[in-house]
Amino acid sequence: MTLPPRLLGSAEVIAVGSEMLGAARIDTNSLFLGERLASLGIDLRAKTVVGDRRADLATFFRQALDRVDLVILTGGLGPTDDDLTRDVVADVLGLEMREDPEIVESIRQRFARRGLRMPEINRRQAMVPTGATVLDNPNGSAPGLLLTHRDRVVLLLPGPPREMKPMFELIAASALEPRARKERFTRTVLFVVGRSESHVEEAIQPIYAPLAQTVPPIETTILAAPGQIEVHLTALSADPAAAAAALASARDRMVAALGDDVFTTEGRPLEQVVGDLLARNGSTIAAAESCTGGLLLSRLTDIPGSSAYVLGGVVAYSNDLKTAFADVPVELIHQHGAVSEPVATAMAQGIRKRTGATYGVGITGIAGPGGGTPTKPVGTVALAVEGPATSAVRTAQFTGGRAQIKHYASQIGLDMVRRMIGRDAVVRRD
Amino acid sequence: MTLPPRLLGSAEVIAVGSEMLGAARIDTNSLFLGERLASLGIDLRAKTVVGDRRADLATFFRQALDRVDLVILTGGLGPTDDDLTRDVVADVLGLEMREDPEIVESIRQRFARRGLRMPEINRRQAMVPTGATVLDNPNGSAPGLLLTHRDRVVLLLPGPPREMKPMFELIAASALEPRARKERFTRTVLFVVGRSESHVEEAIQPIYAPLAQTVPPIETTILAAPGQIEVHLTALSADPAAAAAALASARDRMVAALGDDVFTTEGRPLEQVVGDLLARNGSTIAAAESCTGGLLLSRLTDIPGSSAYVLGGVVAYSNDLKTAFADVPVELIHQHGAVSEPVATAMAQGIRKRTGATYGVGITGIAGPGGGTPTKPVGTVALAVEGPATSAVRTAQFTGGRAQIKHYASQIGLDMVRRMIGRDAVVRRD
Repeated sequence: MTLPPRLLGSAEVIAVGSEMLGAARIDTNSLFLGERLASLGIDLRAKTVVGDRRADLATFFRQALDRVDLVILTGGLGPTDDDLTRDVVADVLGLEMREDPEIVESIRQRFARRGLRMPEINRRQAMVPTGATVLDNPNGSAPGLLLTHRDRVVLLLPGPPREMKPMFELIAASALEPRARKERFTRTVLFVVGRSESHVEEAIQPIYAPLAQTVPPIETTILAAPGQIEVHLTALSADPAAAAAALASARDRMVAALGDDVFTTEGRPLEQVVGDLLARNGSTIAAAESCTGGLLLSRLTDIPGSSAYVLGGVVAYSNDLKTAFADVPVELIHQHGAVSEPVATAMAQGIRKRTGATYGVGITGIAGPGGGTPTKPVGTVALAVEGPATSAVRTAQFTGGRAQIKHYASQIGLDMVRRMIGRDAVVRRD
Repeated sequence: MTLPPRLLGSAEVIAVGSEMLGAARIDTNSLFLGERLASLGIDLRAKTVVGDRRADLATFFRQALDRVDLVILTGGLGPTDDDLTRDVVADVLGLEMREDPEIVESIRQRFARRGLRMPEINRRQAMVPTGATVLDNPNGSAPGLLLTHRDRVVLLLPGPPREMKPMFELIAASALEPRARKERFTRTVLFVVGRSESHVEEAIQPIYAPLAQTVPPIETTILAAPGQIEVHLTALSADPAAAAAALASARDRMVAALGDDVFTTEGRPLEQVVGDLLARNGSTIAAAESCTGGLLLSRLTDIPGSSAYVLGGVVAYSNDLKTAFADVPVELIHQHGAVSEPVATAMAQGIRKRTGATYGVGITGIAGPGGGTPTKPVGTVALAVEGPATSAVRTAQFTGGRAQIKHYASQIGLDMVRRMIGRDAVVRRD
């Protein structure tokens, strides 16, 4: 089929199906399509989930057609009464539907291969609007459809991801790619720990504000994620090398402004940054965790290859185990309390000595909701790191629920290790 | 504030933020809102993610206002230039904005509590459209806003889930609930471990098929979640007692068909089910983890009150630490390999003895991507539980990436504890 000569600059995705409006099911197709469209230089402007209701679907589809060059609808191509997508699209575009005997035959054969006869309702899936190109579905019974309407392109894809994705890839290569703009999105990202969103904003605003006016213009987005702030930089350009160079220059200036609060410019999670540093230096790590309950070690061991540098550690929830597993002197706990810098330090020292690790981490705190006191409220966490050259200890005050406090504490613990390894490298270079 | 007298029958959710149009970030707020709106009998008709683009947001908002009684916008209330939601809503509704000195003061104090001064840009968050009710945000700096427009209700909520959810709950109770329809969705759920989705389907299909025709009709959805299968039952009825009774009867028949593979009918995660069993029996638990790297203990300690029954444990990644921390005999590792049932059993016995816990768990396996062999491929995990009356050990073969394998292994480990506590209770009753 021939697409209109107009280039495809913008798209909307409409996922059809009431089941995705409950709490139980996520529309993962749109995540995949967002990524793939960006790589084609097609700007995904919005994505909508709409239930199996004829009027709603018609409205959203008609409005998307007004706004963007490419409208992708996923789902609602099944054989049952609440599969409305084909009908509604044909209605809105004013097209007749006819049964395609080839599709009927192919669905019939699909059932026959499993020793079944085709239920009559599956004939619905063979209905094709005039002028549509039928897209084969090797992984299911619902064929896809490609239509044009004036200078717009409309793509109907089946809902199940394993049917939708290969079909999209085929049509992307054969039909969308040749009509995509020469401009493509290039992206880069900085992850920051140890500053609030507004303090990151304040530090880099003078850098990013003028970038919106450069050629290529660079768009900056600042996001608060759990335990880290993310700066996303995006350039749209027909010259990917120039875009990459502009992004690299912007990124480097932001890194200079933010200093070593930036822990990665490659999108690596903090546990991987720490792991890569340990691996590069041939160092090892062990941890004695109380309030984080094993989360710091679990995050470190999420990284492939972590067995090379994670020796292990202990989860010492009770005071007895802090003594038995990490050699924390009983008197120290009596004197300062289990949540204190001396106890965190003793835990870090104890686990480092027991395991022979290069770096030992100790974390003890109050994750709540119980256990807080006026002087040590819920969210109080003492963290210590013992290394070959230096020691670090601090007390942090986190807010949020139990899971957040655990996550923040593991994040700060990992960050203390990262900063210490950085300082150790400097010491060694000197 | 007074809401219009009209009942709230329908809603749309608009999530604002370009970052959610990429592949990196999922809009989880809409899942929560879908569930909560259903419980209020408010039909969520569509949900949209729209980027930080003034014209697009204005169009979607205006159209939603045409279609439904309640429009909820999440996100875009931050202090930066691309936080547009307040402005766009005021524009579309034709309202003036003014700075609210009380909000400025409360944001200032929020920063002061952390020893910081308020950046000037945060003043944006104090801008309030005429007639709007300001909703306090105890968990962040962006207040929410509640507006009415003719007979419509508009709710602006912050994007971070831990700020959005408590704010929604307050406004749901005080403002939405009194205007909701009499028909409510009533739901119940069964979580199943140890069976595949199709085996759950096969067991309960004869029960759920006729339920679609009863009064009230009951809708059944079977979902595969990581490490568990979920059966969701939903009834819409103006008689909540009748709906609850019908759901309870359906649920009980399904539990009878699925036996003790059902671990909860209250939506509790498995780590909480195990924790509640331990707490009820006055029992304690400890674990020696290798491939799960602390995840089992971390999950157990996600539950408030877990310090009453989680003693702690060890993460023994290296063979040396399996011996040093959990008394696994060196010869046992040489004879059977680190990933073997005898080693898992020795880890469970060792940690149980060292800590004095009622139940000891041992997990050793190959999380990959490296480390697999022809006889013990990646995903091979040996799990053991030692209890006061019995022992259990098994070898499981999991598929997927490293994080999945860790999660599945922790899930099966927890489930083995759950089943053992169940058997122990029977033994004690006899």
